[in-house]
Amino acid sequence: MELTKNPEKLKRRLSSVQLIVLFYLSAVIVSTILLSLPIAHKPNVELSFIDALFTAVSAISVTGLTVVSTADTFSAPGYFILAFILQFGGIGIMTLGTFIWILFGKKIGLKDRQLIMTDQNRSTFAGLVQLMRQILVIVIVIELIGAFILGIHFLKYFPTWQEAFLQGFFASVSATTNAGFDITGTSLVPFAHDYFVQFINMILLILGAIGFPVLIEVKEFLTQKGNYSYKFTLFTKLTTLTFFILIIVGALFIFLFDRNHFFADKTWHESVFYSLFQSISSRNGGLATMDVSEFSDPTLLFISGLMFIGASPSSVGGGIRTTTFAIMVLSIFFYAKGKDTVKVFGRELHPSDIHGSFIVITTAAFICMSSVILMTFLEPSFSIIEIVFEVSSAFGTTGLSMGITPALSTAGKFVIIALMFIGRIGIFSFLFLIRGNTVKDNFKYPKEKVIIG
Amino acid sequence: MELTKNPEKLKRRLSSVQLIVLFYLSAVIVSTILLSLPIAHKPNVELSFIDALFTAVSAISVTGLTVVSTADTFSAPGYFILAFILQFGGIGIMTLGTFIWILFGKKIGLKDRQLIMTDQNRSTFAGLVQLMRQILVIVIVIELIGAFILGIHFLKYFPTWQEAFLQGFFASVSATTNAGFDITGTSLVPFAHDYFVQFINMILLILGAIGFPVLIEVKEFLTQKGNYSYKFTLFTKLTTLTFFILIIVGALFIFLFDRNHFFADKTWHESVFYSLFQSISSRNGGLATMDVSEFSDPTLLFISGLMFIGASPSSVGGGIRTTTFAIMVLSIFFYAKGKDTVKVFGRELHPSDIHGSFIVITTAAFICMSSVILMTFLEPSFSIIEIVFEVSSAFGTTGLSMGITPALSTAGKFVIIALMFIGRIGIFSFLFLIRGNTVKDNFKYPKEKVIIG
Ligand SMILES: [K+]
Ligand SMILES: [K+]
Repeated sequence: MELTKNPEKLKRRLSSVQLIVLFYLSAVIVSTILLSLPIAHKPNVELSFIDALFTAVSAISVTGLTVVSTADTFSAPGYFILAFILQFGGIGIMTLGTFIWILFGKKIGLKDRQLIMTDQNRSTFAGLVQLMRQILVIVIVIELIGAFILGIHFLKYFPTWQEAFLQGFFASVSATTNAGFDITGTSLVPFAHDYFVQFINMILLILGAIGFPVLIEVKEFLTQKGNYSYKFTLFTKLTTLTFFILIIVGALFIFLFDRNHFFADKTWHESVFYSLFQSISSRNGGLATMDVSEFSDPTLLFISGLMFIGASPSSVGGGIRTTTFAIMVLSIFFYAKGKDTVKVFGRELHPSDIHGSFIVITTAAFICMSSVILMTFLEPSFSIIEIVFEVSSAFGTTGLSMGITPALSTAGKFVIIALMFIGRIGIFSFLFLIRGNTVKDNFKYPKEKVIIG
Repeated sequence: MELTKNPEKLKRRLSSVQLIVLFYLSAVIVSTILLSLPIAHKPNVELSFIDALFTAVSAISVTGLTVVSTADTFSAPGYFILAFILQFGGIGIMTLGTFIWILFGKKIGLKDRQLIMTDQNRSTFAGLVQLMRQILVIVIVIELIGAFILGIHFLKYFPTWQEAFLQGFFASVSATTNAGFDITGTSLVPFAHDYFVQFINMILLILGAIGFPVLIEVKEFLTQKGNYSYKFTLFTKLTTLTFFILIIVGALFIFLFDRNHFFADKTWHESVFYSLFQSISSRNGGLATMDVSEFSDPTLLFISGLMFIGASPSSVGGGIRTTTFAIMVLSIFFYAKGKDTVKVFGRELHPSDIHGSFIVITTAAFICMSSVILMTFLEPSFSIIEIVFEVSSAFGTTGLSMGITPALSTAGKFVIIALMFIGRIGIFSFLFLIRGNTVKDNFKYPKEKVIIG
């Protein structure tokens, strides 16, 4: 692509996806610089360039994989910088960026609306500014309530109210944005027997990962007046149902696979909380109430699959997304039944959505498989399960790890950085990166059937 | 489904896919009985039921995974029984069965033609009897030539010409049907430095796995008279190109991943033959000139991927098949380019073929992933790479193994049996099994788009 000195011209030459990616890249650079500032570190702590970059991408993509201990490396100002980056990454750079733009009184053009639309996966222009405002308000309200509840509760753990509320604030932001960063040093393991903290965290994790459109529809449903005829969209029904099925089925299988291992010496309530929390966390949060490497291989592979699926679209999460997975399952089922359409909740799925879902899933599987093979080649000292878990976690921007992240080679770190980045921008954006402004074919070839399968 | 005493009525009630599966199941039962006959065994050798069943399914599906040593367990008559089952499985029960039917002078009805059509994945009725005859003639001619060449060559290895030609005959049938069974006891390892034997085996493996329609078109092309206007079908172009790309790229990566391990002390010609042979074998043959567990993890994972892809459709092989893989790659590429059709070799792919390919791939991936998780649960003593390799090999009906097959638990053996069976009948047949005779929906719902990816 020929570079031009006129930025307006350049902007028009780039597709909106390419611009979004450019903005994310800029955010990564700024974050890397911010996290490298001496004021962000504890005294006498040095942070290498690759580790600052890794932390920046992990924060922007709200993954939560860490090559250095957040608690030991960063200072209190560092925590706030990190929380700010999480916020930025979680809500979506464009949404937040455009909101700041509005605050400064700029008018939003068609091109900018298109950018936000791409970033939030919306396919209509209508009410976009209002939508963004709602997202921001909802997220900040949730975070503040969470910070307040956790802060009050943490008074019993920490000597000063400042420290309790700093911990509560960071924990709430980290859970709501599903970032999975922790400043305790060991995720939520210290609260393995504090079911109240776990409960609050589960609520915050779910609210962050269930998707903004769902939150907005629920808000509209709850605040409607008079008649009770509110209609949820097919998207909200499909993604919410899938989301909760994954959580329940996830917890069930985690328990079943490890019944005679990890859960062998646990009480029923410990088992319920351990399996439920790790299931919810694998949707996208990445927080853990235990050392996940204590799980047996089938559980770890199963959780890898859950992380690969990831959160709902238009949420803070990554992965192939819940709707994509649901559409795949429904398509296979209806295909096997010999139906040529997929009908669900009294609606028909659009063929282009079905095709898109399969493109996303197969591309994602291909990327993750290749990454696993490449990583076993680059990191011969780690077991395959550790690598599969790490790769799924990075692509799903989940952030759970069996503990190998800090010991990765520089090449291995770059693979994980790339996966977190692709997981955040999504497979569509990744594919469209190579597209640019496409010219449609205006010629046809005869169709010919081939033998498949 | 209500059972009826009238077999004609029953036949009409069953879909052709269900009938095919019923025939395969019957063939498995007959094969299990044949392999359990005392005459089939070496003196004083006992074969348990589960091991006879495993061997029968492995032979019918021409997989070649073995729970007992073929060389040590079966007698010379046993070898011939096995070769007969391989032939039956390789060419497709329906094709061979119908041919025998013709020999006995029965007329072939519409329903039977439909069965063969399903078995060979053909979508037209035209010239079906002729097609079958051609398949059988081509395969037997190839096998006889192979047996003759190998038999002559083996005279220098074996004391009697009877033994040389028995070995040559079995090796040729096993290679052409891509069965991968061996009566040497150690696959082709004894010929690791006999490049002539390897070369003949590679040719036979390729001819068996490249697909009958391709062989027939090549035969038609070679035997045409006069004008040179023969047009290969899109199917033949697509599958053959994919087939050879997979072999070359496969050999290349096998070499690259293991350059500093297995190939570190090998000469250039050893490296070429080892990597090329194992790449060709992973298409479907399952023969090996070395102990594959000597390869490093990335190579083993990569070969697992190759086995998952498998052979061409309408060949002796299993897996998702080459065309399915090619259509996936092309679809992703054209989607990323923003095109709404997939154009290749001056033709457009049919949307239903594209949809079908994605159904096959995702269902297969789902089945294999679930099997791997289940197997790690059932077989805690084996490593994940051993299980991934075994599962891919069974689904691809390839038959390569890191050596765990004989040590599997009974539950583990049943999982592998199921995978070999599904691999042989194919994902389509597997899905259609649950269908029966479907009634099409005659109602419509409004279409609604959802957010994906
Ligand atoms: K996360
Ligand atoms: K085989």
